[in-house]
Parts: sequence; structure tokens; C-alpha cells
Amino acid sequence: MSDAPPGLILILEPSLAPPKRNRIRKRLEELGCEVRYIDGGAHPYLEVSGEVLPVRTISVESWPGVVRMVPLSRAYPQVAWGSGRGDFVAPSVVHLPGVGDADPPVSIGAGSFTVLAGPCAVEDAERTVRLATIAKESGATVFRAGAFKPRTSPYAFQGLEGDGLSILREVRAEVGIPIVTEVLDPRHLEMVADVADVLQVGSRNMHNYALLKELGACRHPILLKRGFASSYDEFLLAAEYILSRGNDRVVLCERGVRTTSGTVLDLGAVPELRRRSHLPIVVDPSHGSGSAHRVLPLARAAAAVGADGLLIEIHDDPIAALSDGQQAIAPSALAGLIDDCRAIRNMIESSTTELNPIPSDSSARKD
Amino acid sequence: MSDAPPGLILILEPSLAPPKRNRIRKRLEELGCEVRYIDGGAHPYLEVSGEVLPVRTISVESWPGVVRMVPLSRAYPQVAWGSGRGDFVAPSVVHLPGVGDADPPVSIGAGSFTVLAGPCAVEDAERTVRLATIAKESGATVFRAGAFKPRTSPYAFQGLEGDGLSILREVRAEVGIPIVTEVLDPRHLEMVADVADVLQVGSRNMHNYALLKELGACRHPILLKRGFASSYDEFLLAAEYILSRGNDRVVLCERGVRTTSGTVLDLGAVPELRRRSHLPIVVDPSHGSGSAHRVLPLARAAAAVGADGLLIEIHDDPIAALSDGQQAIAPSALAGLIDDCRAIRNMIESSTTELNPIPSDSSARKD
Amino acid sequence: MSDAPPGLILILEPSLAPPKRNRIRKRLEELGCEVRYIDGGAHPYLEVSGEVLPVRTISVESWPGVVRMVPLSRAYPQVAWGSGRGDFVAPSVVHLPGVGDADPPVSIGAGSFTVLAGPCAVEDAERTVRLATIAKESGATVFRAGAFKPRTSPYAFQGLEGDGLSILREVRAEVGIPIVTEVLDPRHLEMVADVADVLQVGSRNMHNYALLKELGACRHPILLKRGFASSYDEFLLAAEYILSRGNDRVVLCERGVRTTSGTVLDLGAVPELRRRSHLPIVVDPSHGSGSAHRVLPLARAAAAVGADGLLIEIHDDPIAALSDGQQAIAPSALAGLIDDCRAIRNMIESSTTELNPIPSDSSARKD
Amino acid sequence: MSDAPPGLILILEPSLAPPKRNRIRKRLEELGCEVRYIDGGAHPYLEVSGEVLPVRTISVESWPGVVRMVPLSRAYPQVAWGSGRGDFVAPSVVHLPGVGDADPPVSIGAGSFTVLAGPCAVEDAERTVRLATIAKESGATVFRAGAFKPRTSPYAFQGLEGDGLSILREVRAEVGIPIVTEVLDPRHLEMVADVADVLQVGSRNMHNYALLKELGACRHPILLKRGFASSYDEFLLAAEYILSRGNDRVVLCERGVRTTSGTVLDLGAVPELRRRSHLPIVVDPSHGSGSAHRVLPLARAAAAVGADGLLIEIHDDPIAALSDGQQAIAPSALAGLIDDCRAIRNMIESSTTELNPIPSDSSARKD
Repeated sequence: MSDAPPGLILILEPSLAPPKRNRIRKRLEELGCEVRYIDGGAHPYLEVSGEVLPVRTISVESWPGVVRMVPLSRAYPQVAWGSGRGDFVAPSVVHLPGVGDADPPVSIGAGSFTVLAGPCAVEDAERTVRLATIAKESGATVFRAGAFKPRTSPYAFQGLEGDGLSILREVRAEVGIPIVTEVLDPRHLEMVADVADVLQVGSRNMHNYALLKELGACRHPILLKRGFASSYDEFLLAAEYILSRGNDRVVLCERGVRTTSGTVLDLGAVPELRRRSHLPIVVDPSHGSGSAHRVLPLARAAAAVGADGLLIEIHDDPIAALSDGQQAIAPSALAGLIDDCRAIRNMIESSTTELNPIPSDSSARKD
Repeated sequence: MSDAPPGLILILEPSLAPPKRNRIRKRLEELGCEVRYIDGGAHPYLEVSGEVLPVRTISVESWPGVVRMVPLSRAYPQVAWGSGRGDFVAPSVVHLPGVGDADPPVSIGAGSFTVLAGPCAVEDAERTVRLATIAKESGATVFRAGAFKPRTSPYAFQGLEGDGLSILREVRAEVGIPIVTEVLDPRHLEMVADVADVLQVGSRNMHNYALLKELGACRHPILLKRGFASSYDEFLLAAEYILSRGNDRVVLCERGVRTTSGTVLDLGAVPELRRRSHLPIVVDPSHGSGSAHRVLPLARAAAAVGADGLLIEIHDDPIAALSDGQQAIAPSALAGLIDDCRAIRNMIESSTTELNPIPSDSSARKD
Repeated sequence: MSDAPPGLILILEPSLAPPKRNRIRKRLEELGCEVRYIDGGAHPYLEVSGEVLPVRTISVESWPGVVRMVPLSRAYPQVAWGSGRGDFVAPSVVHLPGVGDADPPVSIGAGSFTVLAGPCAVEDAERTVRLATIAKESGATVFRAGAFKPRTSPYAFQGLEGDGLSILREVRAEVGIPIVTEVLDPRHLEMVADVADVLQVGSRNMHNYALLKELGACRHPILLKRGFASSYDEFLLAAEYILSRGNDRVVLCERGVRTTSGTVLDLGAVPELRRRSHLPIVVDPSHGSGSAHRVLPLARAAAAVGADGLLIEIHDDPIAALSDGQQAIAPSALAGLIDDCRAIRNMIESSTTELNPIPSDSSARKD
Repeated sequence: MSDAPPGLILILEPSLAPPKRNRIRKRLEELGCEVRYIDGGAHPYLEVSGEVLPVRTISVESWPGVVRMVPLSRAYPQVAWGSGRGDFVAPSVVHLPGVGDADPPVSIGAGSFTVLAGPCAVEDAERTVRLATIAKESGATVFRAGAFKPRTSPYAFQGLEGDGLSILREVRAEVGIPIVTEVLDPRHLEMVADVADVLQVGSRNMHNYALLKELGACRHPILLKRGFASSYDEFLLAAEYILSRGNDRVVLCERGVRTTSGTVLDLGAVPELRRRSHLPIVVDPSHGSGSAHRVLPLARAAAAVGADGLLIEIHDDPIAALSDGQQAIAPSALAGLIDDCRAIRNMIESSTTELNPIPSDSSARKD
């Protein structure tokens, strides 16, 4: 028996016949686990260590004789604090080199506050260059715009696709700002990665595991948006798909979850994800609110809650916009928004009120 | 025909026979509306003014000949900006007189940032006095604690009830701090109002219209918590029950909504409710997170998003607590939390980035 | 130590210091529990019996030293199978005596299929008598209609209240059909109970524990509708409030839950509640769909899934209706609907495909 | 101006200045619409026809001067009744040829009741052949089993992939039953289509528009499962992606939606989707309940609500299962389940109670 603490505990039925007990034990051992039998006062217990993660994904509680399975270890060892390949004990940081010699490198996480801004979609070269220039001048350090757009209706504008990527390449060179843009299809990965500094996985694709596996095999940073009806566990497991395949440059993005009364930006996700994971966390108050008038207050709130940055949608002509115009703010409002958020962030960092960013081992065990 | 703009528009079926059209018109007139018939190019339209609010609550779209009902006016005229009895054009403020001569008055709304703090439940006199003293010393200006507790299980602690009220009376006098406590039953209203400065309606009772009607008839300020699966409209209509019966001293409280992945504090509710209503808005990050480690960051975020105050749960001994211990913070953390929030609030008030707190008429028309 | 199986198990931190362990043990004993200490291989375990239900309602997992609390007993002993005062081992049946000498008694549960039909609200005496007559002739055996209506808007029709009750009294006598109607306020209980054969608790009041406590003290059968965002546990605990106060004549009613895409009738609730509880279960496909065209197929589905009956809304003039017209079916469609449902029900009862209505003890332990 | 009825109506602000009105009109015309201006009593109206579908996907209500956009046409013309390429006026049927000469063809939709059964995943050849044989003997006419599995955890069994497809090819030939299996990645499409008779899109991929576009270009029938948090509109628009690209052999599958209290099978989706679309609709009570004891009652309910068939999970050894064992029923229970469902289906088809399966034009206009 290894000395590792058990990763799960099975509570068995009182006076379970030994052959049934042995079938359970044997099956667990076949699956790569070590099992210790405890003769409790009323119930027998099995303390299970070793390869428990696959066991957690099968319905052990439906096995005859099992009363309850109690998982104790983290479901996502690479993404969690204090474990994983790199033994993360400090928050991880995603670094982007500068675009040109004159352009500074960008980092996301661990003390920086990074703003990624731009229009929902690339609509034409002239507007895209103009918006990227304003974004950079306003303090954003990454430019976002979609060339491939996942749209609910087949009759909606689907993005300029390859032409959009060409425009983004031009913007990157001309304005000198790194690019984040969405990849929808594993077949486009090479083409998108050839232009983009950061690859975005949209909310609709957080459960697209075929895509996540490919992203785990590439070297680009990934901006992973939370699925619109996904739990924290599912979100972190999606990140684990990427890290467990070898790419540990992942930024988590909270962008709102669907509720019975519309989409709600879950700012409580930031301290919760922080407690569970070393990955940087940014917030998208644009999609998280769906309405321009709420972007400034929610951006400030995201800074106050401890996010490592923001994803902000800007547009200069709502009547001309081909997607999601109602949540884009005017480019002229961006600089003030960023100033406010940085001021809040500085205030928080200088506060001596305790935050406990890295949990102790024992409390970590409770998820 | 009055000159008031129509409060709703009906789009009728093309070439609807006049007798059917007239039945619709006549029914609307019976219900107190004025109706103007518009002969559109393809569809006929009815512009309806007068007593449209009751009409919005019946299923007009199921009437034969009606294609669509488009409501344009506010469903909650007393609660909305720029209308109602008092013609609210500035944010409303709820004032509480000081408890004793030496105690300052408290106001909620319009620039103040008010913290209401205390334990989930009154458990005993000694602890309650101690917590109230710390709350006051830490900067909270209202003390919260439940004497009547709405509990999911009949086997859970239901509160000390009358004895709890007696303790609260003692705390109020001894510590010199106003009291907010929950009222669950219209039959207890008098008894609770005799002790409390502010009456709380809990999330489970937001839809208890029998209770809301009674509260509309009393003179006490009401702290109205949002139902855990209620839309903004339902929340504001619950407030409208109280205002429309004559009591305009209502404070709205966002406390989280249920989602597919647990309760999520909806901080985007604050700017949305602000845009729709003149009422003060406070946030409960304790119930809105359900976990103590998230209370500080979410309290800061609530201040940043523009809330008028906070409801904070404190407790000094989780093993002794009889309800909801997991979300209470240590009393010693309260002062720092309040300092941080006030600093953020001051930063925002001095910001020149535009917020548009009071919407123009035309945009108001869109809800 | 009693011989009762433990009602909950605590998994403690490895090598928890004895004084901390003892504080936990002592607190559990103070709360009325018996505790057995198990020295596991890695973790210590506490097997806890006795008064465990109150302990389940406090946040034991937030106690220092506790890794996990695993509840094993039923949270609602009176409502669950095979336990409670009456030791329910067969499904319970709610009996209503006949209204007059010529009128047959009505029973709900255990083999009968009972239809409760009528308009949403009592609107006037003439229409109400007419609809009750048709309901009875069509095969419904209980008449439903609201005198007190819980409405989201204060400007909506709130019911005829006392006058509505008088009309219901008249209908009951004249038509000879028992009445179910909603009670909203504990202060109205006597007045409503004086007319009604069955008292309805609406979805908005499932969490109104002040009302539930009163209903537990009365002798009338209760039709308890599931809260629109309530879990099975919360629903059964609401019933437990009533049974634990002495009234075991409760009928559960599934009426749909709110989702991100509107209200969804949860027919899977029927076998799930059946597995957990001996109480009769009826289904409301009218509120559960919100649209008349879905009432017939969902009524058939409710019969097929094993419900003990239906709550059906009928109306004969949607333009005249003052509430919820869009989901009422024409009275003329009721008889066919009931025939179809009874035929499905008979088919199922004669089927030899196995259903396992009453779970074995061990599987029951898993909730 | 064409004679087509307007597909959407804009209600403009009262006394909107002509230049602003003209900018709106001109933009709509640029987007391919025809616009008719109506001078209403209080508001101006624009009746818009032509290419309105793209306009519905941009946020026209955020345009200055627009009070409300009222869409009237169907968002999914190919999927809706009475429109589309083929002018569907009867329910559409998906036909599968027989596997061998001796095997009968299978059809889904329009009067047939088709059962697709099998294990969650292909685990090994011997078990898969055995289960397929039992499925066929029990009355199932399509065999389901996953070779590629979308799993929440990267540590869960991901399917046998290519080897799983080989086993399915063997099963198909040996047992003589058509195969439905899931495709996760556009790059696997050819390989999966080479074995499968029907391609399944899982719930997690309903929003994977890159995949849907590829499926629209292939000739295989598609089993499209509803996203677990998707509205009816989103579901039908996902189908529209496939039909609008040329593949009209789509079967819709309701499999449950996430709610605040777990996954709920939405049987009300069946009549609602039927009213809106000509496509066949099957129900998955296994994933829709997540628990074996609810599969039989929910299968019967699906038959009663009017579904065209079922997707049923079977397994003969829960301890050996590598995914989702808790919802699989014993193979021996399948024949009885199918008999019960067919008996209910026959009962309903012989019922004369009115169902209105195909809506009249005017009511169709209301979605």
C-alpha cells in the first residue's frame, strides 16, 4: 500500500457478503487502484488510492453493495494548486512576446491587469485597424476580433474567415498589438495559429473535446471561455484536457452563465477558481451582461473581485455592426474604463485585508 | 383619445374581419383602455393607452386575431424612474433615525454606502450583544440577525422567535444600533415591527404577496431580497406591491440566483436595477456566495459595481452556529472589508468615466 | 450505542489532534447524537446516529477538522417509505367524502386516477357553475378554481377573494363536486377551509413555512405544488413540514420547473418522488406547459409515467379570461382527455413489465 | 414592394427625425430587405420583408430610434412546416435501407415508432455483439453504441475510437441491424460515415457549427441531440444549419435540459417541436433521467406524448461498464418496454381526441 492519502472512499453496505466485497475490490484493482479495507462499526469502508481519477468518472454508486462514493482528491491535478507536472505553488503567468522590437511583451496573471479589447467580429480592414489603434492607445495590450464566428443561426454573418485572418495579420503588423481570435474547428488550427498570438475557445466549444485535445498539443496560449451552462468542475476539467496534453499556457475566462432570468456574469467564479487553480482568470463583462450600459460597472467589479484582466467589446457604429452590437461600448469610453479598473486593482493590492489566495492543503481537499 | 403615448401595441392578423377586430377593441375598452386603430400596410395595429397594466397580465396573445402584444410602458410605475406618485427623478433614500440621542441617523441610498452586518440567527443574548458591538465598532450601521428563520427542513433550528425579538430589543438599546430582521408571517408583523427598524423579506418570501400587501400598509422601511429564481421584472413588481400600497421606503437586495451550477451572485443586477428604478440597492455577498472565502472579494465587487451597501454575515464560532455557518466571516475581518469597500466607492465617485445612472426617456421605454 | 444504523458519517482529517476530535464529538452529542469513532487506515471516521436530522442542516463541513459529511438517512422520515409514524409500507391514499348523499367519495392515490379540473380563477357565479357541471360530466371528480390568486403584478386581477369563496360554496352544493382552492395567507385558512375540501398550496408558497406549519395543524387534505425552482429534496421537506405537524393527508403536485429555456414539466419527478415517498402524486400539465396545445399530450404522458391524477385548467372564452387564458383547454376537450388517460393507465396497470414501485431498503439509503 | 407578408416589424420612436428614419431604412435595404413605412397614430412602424433572417440576428433594438423589433417569420424556414425547399406539408420521414437482403428497411417518423438501443460505449466485440443481438430480438431496429465518447474528464474512458468502429462494422454485418454512432470531429466524419447508418451529434456538440456544416454536406441521416441548456429555437436553428446546407434527413432528439435541480427530460418539447417542425422527434429517457429506475416510466411517457421513437441505453454488467452505467437498463427489460410503448402508441393513434399536429398558418406566425 502506498503512503499517498486515499483519493476516494467507498462506504459499503453493512454486512456485505465477502464475495460481493471482493468483486468490488478486484474491479478497483483492475482499474489501477490500491484498496485498503476498513471494518467500521456499522459500515465497511474502502480507502482507495492510485489511479482513482478514471474511477470517479464511472458510476460506482450504482454497483451492488456500494452505498456511497466520496471523492477526496482533485479531479484536475494539472490545473489545481500545488500539484501537477510543474508543482505549481505560485500563480502561473502566460507571457506573450512583443509583436515588434518596439512593442513590449504582455503577461497575463500574477499581478498584472491585462485588457483584451476589440470588436466582436472583423468586419473590414479599415475599421479593424482604427479600432485596434484606439484599443492600444487606450491601454489595451491585446486586440480581440473574430474571423470565424459561431452563430446560432445559419443565416447570421459567420465571419470573414480567411479574409478576416488576413486583416488581423495586417492589424498586428501595422498597429503592433498581439491578437486573440477564436478557433472553431480543429482543421483551422494551423491557419489561425499562424496569425494569432492567443487562441480563443468560445463558450459554445468549451465541451468540444476534439478541439481541446488539439489545443493541448499546440504551443500557443489558449483563452478558454467557460461554457454558458457549465460548472466550475467542468470548466477546470476542460482546462485539464489542454494541460494534460502538454500545453500549460491557459487563461480561464468567465463570461456569464445562463439562468432562468437570462445570462448572469458570475464574478464569484473568480475567487472560487482562484482557490482551486493556479491559472490566470480574466472576465468578459461584455458577453457577461449583453448590454453596453453594464460594461463599465461590471468591469470595475471584475477588477475589484480579483480578476487578472478583462475582455471588452468595442464598436464605433452600432447600426453598421454585423454581430452583437448591443453590448459593445464606444471606443472613446475604453481609456477611462481601464484607468478605473487599474486604480481599483492598485487599491486592492495595497490593502492589508486578508484574502487567502492559496488555500492550505486541508481545505483544498474539500472540493 | 388621450395624448399619453400608448402603453402597448397589438399587431393583428392581416385582413382580420371587422367583427373580430371590434370584439378585441371592445374588450380592451371594458378593461379601461383607450384604443386607436392603425391601418398598416400588411397588418392592422392597435395603439392602446389608459389602463394597460392589467391587460399586460392576461394572455392577450391567445386571443383570436392577435399576432403579437408589444408592451411599451413600465410594468411598475411607482418603482420606475421619473414616474409614480412622487415623480422620482433623483434616487430615493431610506432614512432611519438614530436609536438613541447619541446615535447618528442612518441613510441607505444616493451616495451613502451602508453596511448591515450580524449573524444569520439570534442564538443567545450574550453572543448577539458581542457581535453587534463588534459590527458597530467595525463600521456597520445596521445590525442584522434572524429571530424567525425560514428553514428548508422542519428539523432545522427555526429561530428563537419571540425570545429572539426580546434579545434584539436588548441589543438595540444596549449597543445603540438599528435592527433589521426578517418577518415571515403577516401575523407576526406587529410584533416584529415593534422591535425592528427595518423589516426584511427573505428570498423565499419575495413571491408571498399576502405578506407584501401588509408591508405596503405599514410605515417601516422594507429590505426586500430577490427571489432565488426571480427575474428583474418579478423583483421590481414585488417592490411595486409595497409602493403601490403606500410604503415607498423599500431597499432592494440582490442575494444570488440559482443556476445549473449553484447559486450565483448577480452583480450585473445592480446597474440593471439602477437603470430601471430609483430604489436603493444593497448586495448580500454572504448568501450570494455561500462560502466565507468569497465574501471579501464579492463585497469589494459590489462596491465597485455601484451598490448602495452590503448585508454581511459574521460569526465567531462555526462549530456553535445553528445555521449557515459556512458563509459567515470572522468578526475581526469586518472592519477591513468595510474600509476596502468605502475606498473603492470613493474612487468610483471621483471618477469622471461616464456611468449614465438615470436613463433618458427613450431608452427607458425599451424594457 | 444504539443498534440503529448511522444516519450520517463524518470523514475527518488524517491525524486530527484528539482535542479537536473531541470538540467535534462533544458538539454532536450536545445536539442529541450518538457517535462511534472508527480508526480508519488513513482517515478517522465518525459514525453518527440518533438526532442526526438537525445536524444535517448545519454546515458541519465548515467545522475545522471535518473533511466530509456523508448523510445516509432520509431527510424526511414521515414522507419517506417504510418509516414515519404510520410505518407506511403501502402507498398512502387521500380520501374525500362525497359532497352529498348521492355523490360518491373520491380518493387520490394507490390505483385511482383522479382528475381535478376547472378554470384558473373564479370569475363569476354563472360561468363557474357551468364549468363545474361540464367538469363533472366529463369525468373530473374534484373542481378547482382560485378565489385568492397570487399574481406577479399588483395590477393583475387578484381573485374575487371572499366573494369567490361564496361562489365556490354554491357550486359545491349545486353541482355536487368537491372543491380544491388555493390558500395564500395563514389568516385566511379558516375561511377557505370552511368551503374547500382540499387546500392548495401554490408553487410560489411551497417555501412559505409559516403557512405550511398551519396546514400541518389542520385536518384538511393538502394539494402541495412544487416550487418552480425547487429540488426534490426541498419539495419533500415542504411536505414533511405538514406531516411532521400531524397532517398526513398530502398530495404532491408536479407543475414544472423553470429552466434557461422556460418552464419544463418534469415528468421524471413522478417515478423519482414515487421511489422516495408514499404520498400520492398528481401532475399539472396546464401550468407545466403554459400552452393549451400541449395539455393533451402531456396529460397522456403523465398518465403513462404513473401519476395518480391530473390538475387541468379549462375555460370557455379566452378573451373574457382574467388570468392565464393561454393554457386553458376548451371544456369540450376534457372528456376525451380523461378517457385517453384512463385507457393508458389501465394499459400500464395490466402490463407485466416490472416497475419496482417500492424500493428495497438498501437502495433507498442512497438518497 | 413584394406581396409577401412582412417578416419583421420595427416600432420606431414617436416623431423620429426623418434623417434618422432614413438611415434605418437605408441600412435595412442594404441588408436585402424591402421596407414599408407606416405612419401610426403615436409611433411610426416599418414593415420589413425580403431578407429578414440576417437582420433578426443583429441587435436592431440597439439602433438609435428603434423602440422594438418584432420578428414575425420563422427563424428556420427549412425546418418549419409548410415552407422550405420541399414545401413540407406532411411530417418528414427518415428512411434507412435494410442492412442485408433479409433485413427490413427502417423508417423514423410519421407513424412508425422506432427504438434505437444499445450500450453507452463499445467496450469489446463480444459484449457488443451480444447486446446488439438482444436489442434486435427485443424489437429495437437500430443499434446505438459510442466509439468516440465526449467525456467531461480527460481521465475518463474516451471510447475505443477506430477499434470501436471496426467492432460496430462487425456487429452490423453479423447481427443485421443498422448502426447509429456519434461523430465528434469533422475530421472523423468520413471514417464514421463509412460504418454508421446514422450519424449522431451529441448534446455537447449541438452548438458545434463547424461540425453541423459538414453534416449538412453529407448524405447520411443525422440524429441531432438537443444541447443541455438550449432553447427550442437554438435546437431548430442547429437543425436548420444541416437542412440549409442540403441534408434534410435530420431526426431531432430530446435528451433533457439542465435545471437548478439536475437534468430534467422535457417531454413538453415533443408537442412544441412538432408544432414548429416537420422533422421526426425521438426521446432519450436514459440520459434524460440519469437513473435506470426511471427509464421505463419515461419511455412510456415519451410514447404517450407523441414521440416517433426512443433511444435506450442497455448494459448487462454495471460493474464492468466504463461509462454511464447508472442509467442503463438490463437487456432483459427491453422487450417489455418496447411492447408497452407500442401499445400506448397504438392507443393514441386510434384515439379520436383532437391533437392538431399541424398548426394553421396564423398560429404558426406566433413563434
